[in-house]
Amino acid sequence: MLNLKDKIRDIPDFPEKGILFRDITTLLQDKEAFKMAVDELKKITDEYEFDLIIGPESRGFIVGTPLAYATGKGFVPVRKPGKLPYKTIRFAYDLEYGSDVLEIHMDAIKEGEKVIIVDDLLATGGTLLSTIRLVEQLGGEVAAVLVLIELTDLNGRDKLQKYNVRSLIQY
Amino acid sequence: MLNLKDKIRDIPDFPEKGILFRDITTLLQDKEAFKMAVDELKKITDEYEFDLIIGPESRGFIVGTPLAYATGKGFVPVRKPGKLPYKTIRFAYDLEYGSDVLEIHMDAIKEGEKVIIVDDLLATGGTLLSTIRLVEQLGGEVAAVLVLIELTDLNGRDKLQKYNVRSLIQY
Repeated sequence: MLNLKDKIRDIPDFPEKGILFRDITTLLQDKEAFKMAVDELKKITDEYEFDLIIGPESRGFIVGTPLAYATGKGFVPVRKPGKLPYKTIRFAYDLEYGSDVLEIHMDAIKEGEKVIIVDDLLATGGTLLSTIRLVEQLGGEVAAVLVLIELTDLNGRDKLQKYNVRSLIQY
Repeated sequence: MLNLKDKIRDIPDFPEKGILFRDITTLLQDKEAFKMAVDELKKITDEYEFDLIIGPESRGFIVGTPLAYATGKGFVPVRKPGKLPYKTIRFAYDLEYGSDVLEIHMDAIKEGEKVIIVDDLLATGGTLLSTIRLVEQLGGEVAAVLVLIELTDLNGRDKLQKYNVRSLIQY
């Protein structure tokens, strides 16, 4: 039986010394593994009622858009400043070094719409928490937060305690 | 009948004065339109034999990954420098102002593999031509170049004469 973890490549010292990067490109380029990953994520989404998939730039697009297609939902991108062409709202979050800003189109979500936020990775949870804040500012409801990979040692889940956080692969 | 063009939003003067930007986020967030766009792109891919979908960062991910899922193929990302964690090859191309660089993992495509390159937009063709060069440097064969939107006035197709260039929506 296909094991998705076997399809993820470990890259030591990327993007900086001491970090072991989990490279999903080897999974994506393997057609059986890619299909299986999306299908397994879809099974998890089946437990929730939702209207839209939201994905942060840019690996959130890679996991979120096929999942939106597979589930028959629409997709809303969350992007770095200046990338979205229409009116946006933004949220700034702290990183280990400095801070970062994410934006969403102000008409991307209607009041009361239920969404599932999707990304490739849950590490410290900063990007996902910012994405949640953007969704909630627009009046959206977060049905679940779903990631392909969770790095459990980094305790990102603690930041997201109020939410249904689900992951397909854990390290 | 659903008309995909009606789902694309025109944004004047983005990203700079004088440019009319075709915003696909309104199409993506509409579940019927998004599904229809991917299904129509899939119909075009059915005319070609291919092993992989290749998409340049980052709107190429948005169109390319659901299409890879729908066609049962793997997906290979082409990215800006420093984003791909493993060994890469790179190609530099000229823009209206300055130049830009794209990278692909050196083991992303095997000698003789057939690929379809997918992006949201064909404008001047620079990004797509660079992606073709990367694929060919790795020994891959470009079965087709497929975009959601083609801006015909910009004659990007002239740069890509040797290839099967297909688009779903033309302006």
